[in-house]
Amino acid sequence: MTAADILGYAAGALTAFTFLPQVLKTWKEKSAKDVALNMFIIAFINEIMWLVYGIMINNWIIIATNAVMLAMSGIMIFLKLKYK
Amino acid sequence: MTAADILGYAAGALTAFTFLPQVLKTWKEKSAKDVALNMFIIAFINEIMWLVYGIMINNWIIIATNAVMLAMSGIMIFLKLKYK
Repeated sequence: MTAADILGYAAGALTAFTFLPQVLKTWKEKSAKDVALNMFIIAFINEIMWLVYGIMINNWIIIATNAVMLAMSGIMIFLKLKYK
Repeated sequence: MTAADILGYAAGALTAFTFLPQVLKTWKEKSAKDVALNMFIIAFINEIMWLVYGIMINNWIIIATNAVMLAMSGIMIFLKLKYK
């Protein structure tokens, strides 16, 4: 495993949790007025694309990263619609 | 170019613009109370990692995607600190 591989895996692992602070903040404060719904709709569609791509090329890093992000985007869309 | 390649390029291109709706909304409404600062700090650090990874493996799709996202995360951090 090269240094580039390790950096790639670390970057992918961190990417999976990008949306977590937003999910936790919105969950706790029950307010999402300033959050852009379209950001999470784009992300949701995009992660389905990445997921299918990951399955097609059989890359488990891409599959796992985007499965986590898909779940978090779905939760954020639900929270945004619930708390406006 | 395979179907998987095309899907990967399309997914990468869409990823680059995930944060754009949030940048535009915050810019227009001058309010970012409900936006999680940590989301964009994680994204900012993460995109530097992806950028270095892209340079190391000489992959221009990764470089270009993450250069756009790095700029947008930077703008969002600035807007969040400005508008709270």
